[in-house]
Amino acid sequence: MNLKDTIVTIPNFPKEGIMFRDITTLLENGEAFKQTIEELASFAEEMGATVIVGPEARGFLFGAPVAAKLGLGFVPVRKPGKLPRAQITEEYSLEYGTNTLCIHEDALKKGDKVLIIDDLLATGGTALAAAHLCEKTGAKVVGLAFVIDLVDLKGKEVLKDYPVKTLIEFEGE
Amino acid sequence: MNLKDTIVTIPNFPKEGIMFRDITTLLENGEAFKQTIEELASFAEEMGATVIVGPEARGFLFGAPVAAKLGLGFVPVRKPGKLPRAQITEEYSLEYGTNTLCIHEDALKKGDKVLIIDDLLATGGTALAAAHLCEKTGAKVVGLAFVIDLVDLKGKEVLKDYPVKTLIEFEGE
Repeated sequence: MNLKDTIVTIPNFPKEGIMFRDITTLLENGEAFKQTIEELASFAEEMGATVIVGPEARGFLFGAPVAAKLGLGFVPVRKPGKLPRAQITEEYSLEYGTNTLCIHEDALKKGDKVLIIDDLLATGGTALAAAHLCEKTGAKVVGLAFVIDLVDLKGKEVLKDYPVKTLIEFEGE
Repeated sequence: MNLKDTIVTIPNFPKEGIMFRDITTLLENGEAFKQTIEELASFAEEMGATVIVGPEARGFLFGAPVAAKLGLGFVPVRKPGKLPRAQITEEYSLEYGTNTLCIHEDALKKGDKVLIIDDLLATGGTALAAAHLCEKTGAKVVGLAFVIDLVDLKGKEVLKDYPVKTLIEFEGE
């Protein structure tokens, strides 16, 4: 099926001028959701991933099912204050201010081949920070995969040093 | 394998006196994570679930993989301000103050058989609120499943009107 047909667009959410691409309508469609996970899992196998990493919270929705399907471990990247043990952090700039990503320092190690999975590629800032965070542990990032690519924001250029897979493209709309 | 062996306990997190049961060490173990999803999926089939519901954020880690494995839709329950379309909400009491859960009003309908999946059963307050939220849509809650049961907090008594499955029990420790 055409996955793009399952995405609903909400104009001006969460603020004026933003065209919000809602992935909950894909998730609620059992056939579409299963196909999405199969396509992401195929990319994980192609890249030789040995572990899946997903940023909180929507990255959990797609990354965890891929890990479970392939029998791989899943490592969550979380906001500050959520993880209970010793962590590595990565700060990055947003349009206004900064954001911080956290990972348990023992969650990844040298030799691990990481595929990062998230719901949506916009400017690529969060994804690049997540990749750098993983690399601080000594692991190798073998790719990044997203359900949706907002092509006009050119996130793939920011991630040009990595193999990137996206399943649904929105461009000039 | 014994799933309980993969859980790490962190004393006094997030505050003094709390024994925090960390599920990230289960997630990172590919074999344990796969077995967890298989056991939860078996319960979903046994209950005849037609849709899986999971509360943000840790419920996503276990609910979404079960949905994808069974080819069912997954419906996220979120905190206020996260969902972009018309919602139904449920407010419930915490030790101090209240909390609100949200679901898209068109995410479930009469005839749907819902299994709610979350990482951990404590007092059962959030789980019961999630069940009531689902029922407001006209759907039937056919069960609730949790990876961990903090038995001393007696959450199963609060959920006595529903079939409940838990995979790992912590009691008097």
